[in-house]
Order: sequence, then structure tokens, then C-alpha cells
Amino acid sequence: DIVEALNTHFPSRALEGLRLVITAGPTREAIDPVRFIGNHSSGKMGFALARAAIEAGATVTLVAGPVHLDTPERATRIDVESARDMLSACHSACHQADIFIACAAVADYRPVTVADHKLKKQGDSGLTIELTQNPDIVATISKEFPSLYTVGFAAETQHVLEHAREKRIRKQLDLIIANDVGNDAVFGQDHNSVIIIGSELELHLPEASKLDVARTCINELAKEYRRTH
Amino acid sequence: DIVEALNTHFPSRALEGLRLVITAGPTREAIDPVRFIGNHSSGKMGFALARAAIEAGATVTLVAGPVHLDTPERATRIDVESARDMLSACHSACHQADIFIACAAVADYRPVTVADHKLKKQGDSGLTIELTQNPDIVATISKEFPSLYTVGFAAETQHVLEHAREKRIRKQLDLIIANDVGNDAVFGQDHNSVIIIGSELELHLPEASKLDVARTCINELAKEYRRTH
Repeated sequence: DIVEALNTHFPSRALEGLRLVITAGPTREAIDPVRFIGNHSSGKMGFALARAAIEAGATVTLVAGPVHLDTPERATRIDVESARDMLSACHSACHQADIFIACAAVADYRPVTVADHKLKKQGDSGLTIELTQNPDIVATISKEFPSLYTVGFAAETQHVLEHAREKRIRKQLDLIIANDVGNDAVFGQDHNSVIIIGSELELHLPEASKLDVARTCINELAKEYRRTH
Repeated sequence: DIVEALNTHFPSRALEGLRLVITAGPTREAIDPVRFIGNHSSGKMGFALARAAIEAGATVTLVAGPVHLDTPERATRIDVESARDMLSACHSACHQADIFIACAAVADYRPVTVADHKLKKQGDSGLTIELTQNPDIVATISKEFPSLYTVGFAAETQHVLEHAREKRIRKQLDLIIANDVGNDAVFGQDHNSVIIIGSELELHLPEASKLDVARTCINELAKEYRRTH
């Protein structure tokens, strides 16, 4: 439509000259050669943020878990599977970045051991999988690159604001974008409604398409970044 | 190419008048509202079998786990998530079927309990997931519909023939189609090489596209079916 055409052809260029690293999609943690622990993230929100950031003049590196989405025009895409792969890719990319947006739904846990062969059923008995915590990507990057402007996402199914505010402070993030993923409300859907939370900011965005939400997030992020840099 | 054109325009109609139920893709077993245990099956082989069976004149119901594939022309598609959903859909569909092909990579195990809310990290500690066995779809269907011609798949990473032969007998299948899924050889790939095993049959097919392998499997299956019915 006309608004979209104007946004595309007369973008605000609010991020002109800035280099962003954006993570998107799920991660997969191998159990054995065929099985994994995954999550329902489609990657749509992270890809929309990449597109919106590029429209706003940024140079974007998109670190993507396994998703079925086309790479936004002019983005540099790095495909990864596991949380540790994603951290490693982000670590390399963030040396050259001004802003890091961690939108991926990273697995908190991975199996302690990965079987070499497909696990075979043993009689009728059950099975126990021991999990260990994955590194926290956004907290790790924020700590290792103190001057990098870091933005996290908080996907919560309850006490959304409370959990998001606590995470922003604990992980030392400049901004956190919170949303409620209970009841299939967000993952895989085309619409989203979020709350942008900063040290002096709490902005509730109305529900809109993920691309429109992404454009608003990028504009607000750019304002906050310019205000503090 | 010409062979494909001939196959499409002058199909053998080897399954004319027969009703097939075919399962395809992975299943997903929920851990909580956002996490699941999945596997790397793309659904390509099951979808290729559906297409080949339709070319051969069959009426096809395709019971599909979560995949990113277009429905073959003229197939009736039923989308499911978990192994129990898939069994339930197969159970309904097989009342009206002559042949059942279980090509899906069904999860052997599911979490004993599914959390209502996204599991939150607890300090730095690990986590244990207790799993219980899922129903065996092809064995259950074979037992409940003794006159249904049942075809299973055996995706193995070692001792392929041995495991497949044992499975065919234990699960009371008419045919089993075995392949080696070690080292990313099959899942998600466009090519496949399989062994068709029956009571008096052991046919090693050369590596070919999944659609060509599917067409050969459907032709051999039709011959075996006609020989015994």
C-alpha cells in the first residue's frame, strides 16, 4: 500500500551508517543424529527487524537458526543450528557492530551428551534426557562488548512485564522488547504486539504486522541510540 | 525430462481404484508451550510417495507432520503435530483404505508431562526430561486392520538390513523400506537409496531422486499387492 511504498522509498534513514547484528529464529539442540530439541520460533520477527533496519540505512548481519524464510535484500546472512554455534557467530560479527539485537528464541538447555547413533527403543521402558544450560547469548555479548548497544527480547507466557524488566537489568541490556507467547499468540504468526522497555522508557505498541512492529521498534531504538551516543 | 513426462502422461495406473493412506514428515512432541522434541525429517519422501501413488491411479490421504511442502495435486492432506495425533488421524483414515504406507519419522518418545507455561531457568542447574514411549503407529494400525496391506519404513544409522528385517516381522508388515540415515545421508536431502524388503523380496534400489525412488517403490508395492490380493 501507499504507506509501505513511502516507507520503502523515503525511509527515515534513522540508522544510516550503523552496523547491526540481529539474531533470528529458533536454535536446535541435538539429542542424536536425527532428533533434536527445538522451539516454535519461525524467525519472522527477526527477519522483519533486519528488513526494517536495512530500510533505515543500517548494514545488517543476520544470524539465523533453522527457518524457512528468504534473506532480506542486502542482509548478510549466517546460518547456524545450536545456541553455541549462534553465540560463536555473534561473537565474531559483534567485533564490527554498533548495535546487537538478540531476537532469536535460543534454547536455554541442551542435552548433556549427544548420542553418535539414533537412540533405539529399549523394551517398553521410558528414557531420561539430562540437560545442561546453554550460554546466555545476549548477556554474554553484552558483557564482552560493553560499548555495544544491546537489545534483547523476552518471550514470556506469564508475568510478562515483570520478567522482562528483571531480565533487562540482570543481563545489562539497553533495551528489552517483551511479548506474550502464551496460547500460540506470536510464534509463527504474522502479527505481534510488544512492549519496548528501556531505563526511562516503557512503550506499549498496538498489535500490527510483524513488519510494522519491526519498523516501529527500529525507529524507537534509533531514537534511544542517538539520544545516548 | 522425457522420462518424467512419459511417467506423468502415460502412468502405469498400477494402483488404479486403490485407496492409500500415507504418513510423512516428522512429529513434534511438546515439552512446554514453546519447546518440543522434533527430528530432521523433511517429509520429502512421503510427499514423493503420495505423488507417485496418485500418478499410479490411487486415491491418497496424506497424513503430514509439520513440514514446509506443497500438497501433491489431488491428495487429501491431514496436518498433525504429535505421534498420538498422527495415530488418531491414521486410525480414522484407514477404515476406508486398502494400503497404508508409514513413511513419517514418528517420535518414539514424548515427555511424560507437558508444562503449561514456558519452563524458566532455575539458577545454573541442569534439567531432566522424563520421556515415555509413544504408540508405534504402523504396528498398531497393522494389528487393528489385519486385512490392510501395510508398508513401513526403517530409518537406521547402523545394521540397516538386520534391523529392518526384524522390524518387518515384529510389526507384522507386508513390506518394509529400509534406508541408512547416518551422516545426514537422507533427511532433508533430495536423493535417497533404499532397500525394499518383503517375505520373498529383497530389492536394493540404486540412489536416485526421492521422486524416482518413490515411483519405483510404488511400482514394486503394486506388484506385490496384486500378487497377494
